[in-house]
Amino acid sequence: MIEYIRDGKEIYRRSFATIRAEAGLDELPSDVAGVAVRMIHACGMVDLVDDLAFSSGVVGVARDALAAGAPVLCDAEMVAAGVTRRRLPAANEILCTLSDPRVPELARQLETTRSAAAMELWRGRLDGAVVAIGNAPTCLFRLLELIEEGAGTPAAVLGIPVGFIGAVESKQALEEHPGCPEYLVVHGRRGGSAMTVAAINAIASEEE
Amino acid sequence: MIEYIRDGKEIYRRSFATIRAEAGLDELPSDVAGVAVRMIHACGMVDLVDDLAFSSGVVGVARDALAAGAPVLCDAEMVAAGVTRRRLPAANEILCTLSDPRVPELARQLETTRSAAAMELWRGRLDGAVVAIGNAPTCLFRLLELIEEGAGTPAAVLGIPVGFIGAVESKQALEEHPGCPEYLVVHGRRGGSAMTVAAINAIASEEE
Repeated sequence: MIEYIRDGKEIYRRSFATIRAEAGLDELPSDVAGVAVRMIHACGMVDLVDDLAFSSGVVGVARDALAAGAPVLCDAEMVAAGVTRRRLPAANEILCTLSDPRVPELARQLETTRSAAAMELWRGRLDGAVVAIGNAPTCLFRLLELIEEGAGTPAAVLGIPVGFIGAVESKQALEEHPGCPEYLVVHGRRGGSAMTVAAINAIASEEE
Repeated sequence: MIEYIRDGKEIYRRSFATIRAEAGLDELPSDVAGVAVRMIHACGMVDLVDDLAFSSGVVGVARDALAAGAPVLCDAEMVAAGVTRRRLPAANEILCTLSDPRVPELARQLETTRSAAAMELWRGRLDGAVVAIGNAPTCLFRLLELIEEGAGTPAAVLGIPVGFIGAVESKQALEEHPGCPEYLVVHGRRGGSAMTVAAINAIASEEE
């Protein structure tokens, strides 16, 4: 018989205690620290905190937007799939348009990635939304263009794309953009759907 | 106008070139190196390769199993959601039982996590399957118990759970178990659905 902890609540409790003991959360505002704990839990890396950057109101503003019924606009199906529906305060819509049949043609017309082209289908939904970008750097760049075009301004942006081409630069561009709404980013190449989902789930409910 | 690369194929090409230049892939068998490239692409960390461990036949055996129509049994909805269906060689079933309505009661009866309890519904499907565990360490422990019980032996196991409680130990237990089938693991706390999906997608098709 293999010995291991089988109690899900106890696993969470011990995991979060380990994270709080090891990660340097003390310098974070308490609401951001709560989000950081879940993000670290999703990736297994306590040094993630060194790459976190955020505007001071991001958690409060995103939380208020969700409470008021704002949709969560996601760049990837994995992000949409990971959101824990019962944590959402207003049965909020979780929208990912990447698989929409119009997207391949939009990508050809706009000469961009399918991920960025899929955001054309966010028009009319962008204003006041919570945007969660956990995969494609081109989506974060495209978001700034949409804001510049006046297509709407989200309440908050979780900018956590991952990778080697554009990830570093797109997160910098978001932070430095004059039209940037409340934001949370992970600097550098790290990012991805799992930590993005963890951030949404933490913002959606303060329950650990 | 923000300058960034908008050509998806070019982004992939440059990303994979960067990974091949920076990651120490030379010591890996070429089939495992191809899988490692996609896993690194999904997490942004070239040092992932230092934590990779695998049996020599894992990629070939998993690839043959998929070609023969084996299902992919996943521990998390995010893993199932991320598999690129058009890469699969035999329209393989991607099965995640975590949301099955019977699972909460099974978890109570078996006094285990919902993730591990959901694997009761894998009985009869386990033998010859490709198992992809990208979230819960308890699933990897439970898999070894199911193999011990004679519930079946998968063709190959991608053991990539993440976290602080049980992740390290469950991956060690898999490797050291006498009944362990072909396997690929990421040692340590790192893991998660994104890199697990990347491994499945790389095994499913050699197309970069």
